[in-house]
Amino acid sequence: MTGLFIVFEGGDGVGKSTHARRLAEHLTALGETVVHTREPGGTDLGLEVRQIVLHHRGHVDPRAEALLYAADRAHHSATVVRPALARGEVVLQDRYIDSSVAYQGSGRDLGASEIRELSEWATGGLQPDLVLLLDVDPAEARARMTSERGELDRLESEARDFHDRVRAQFLEQAAAHPDRYLVLDATREHEVVAAEIKARVDALLGERA
Amino acid sequence: MTGLFIVFEGGDGVGKSTHARRLAEHLTALGETVVHTREPGGTDLGLEVRQIVLHHRGHVDPRAEALLYAADRAHHSATVVRPALARGEVVLQDRYIDSSVAYQGSGRDLGASEIRELSEWATGGLQPDLVLLLDVDPAEARARMTSERGELDRLESEARDFHDRVRAQFLEQAAAHPDRYLVLDATREHEVVAAEIKARVDALLGERA
Repeated sequence: MTGLFIVFEGGDGVGKSTHARRLAEHLTALGETVVHTREPGGTDLGLEVRQIVLHHRGHVDPRAEALLYAADRAHHSATVVRPALARGEVVLQDRYIDSSVAYQGSGRDLGASEIRELSEWATGGLQPDLVLLLDVDPAEARARMTSERGELDRLESEARDFHDRVRAQFLEQAAAHPDRYLVLDATREHEVVAAEIKARVDALLGERA
Repeated sequence: MTGLFIVFEGGDGVGKSTHARRLAEHLTALGETVVHTREPGGTDLGLEVRQIVLHHRGHVDPRAEALLYAADRAHHSATVVRPALARGEVVLQDRYIDSSVAYQGSGRDLGASEIRELSEWATGGLQPDLVLLLDVDPAEARARMTSERGELDRLESEARDFHDRVRAQFLEQAAAHPDRYLVLDATREHEVVAAEIKARVDALLGERA
């Protein structure tokens, strides 16, 4: 495969899709063909699966949920990502395996390594060339919230632990594979973050050429 | 768990659901509470998943398909089978893990052991107490068809190989776990087969008591 597979990871609202769009513009200007996609829901089948996960009335067994997300990923990898990479294109993707590991593996009763193995089987072991992790410390967001509003309630505290665990999972993956991850402090100016992304991707394009 | 988990396996049209209904009547007469269920599609979520697998327009990636069936199985095991067994009931189920292994593992590009591992993860390793394998030699059905109609066409020959592989997978599992399988020649009189099933299940009830 001669294409490049670049994944954006991080919590909600950290700017993943904004940075992806901006990087897409930069790459297109350089003459690259860019596919900007996302999981879950990057295919018709994925949208149907997502519909079940989000709108099924009543309880969904956690393993069933993990398997439904893995089905979405299998179909998306096989029918969107791999074909684009085989054509030599650049795939920019919002969320991939690390998001499942972080959210389903840390947040629920399922183990992180089980969730990872499931996704790796689903994708036939397809690894990104680069993961751009847009990192925000939940404690900072929390501190701002507390100073504005006073005490956090019980639900907010639970959510805090959850987001701490999710962030820890993302950072753990990045630490284990420094060659493949770029951790970006996403609380900085948008321009600064964008410039850092651009520099790393330009270096990657240089290696490929 | 004090219940009994009994699975009916075999090709289409061999009489799985007829024999299950008949066994259900026998067990109910003995005072057992019986849950007669099936995979895929034994839950509301399973029916939605089945809808995707069967009616999605266009190609479905084989791994995505296997994961969707595993999701159905995870939800069904967790919300129907395990609760019934925990209540001490008898679960009679049309098709379980062996069907996925036989049809998806042999018929498509995926390996039998991968499909089995996926299902075992989905169900948390829930094993049946007894598998009743209703066996029919595809060669016999074929011989009858050929003597009636002359030569088989190319598609029929392909289907023949497929059904031979599926049958071989079922028999292989049965041979590996003789304590848990009863292989029944389903070309015999219905009454004879039913009596053999009844005898084995009565013995199992005796062991449980």
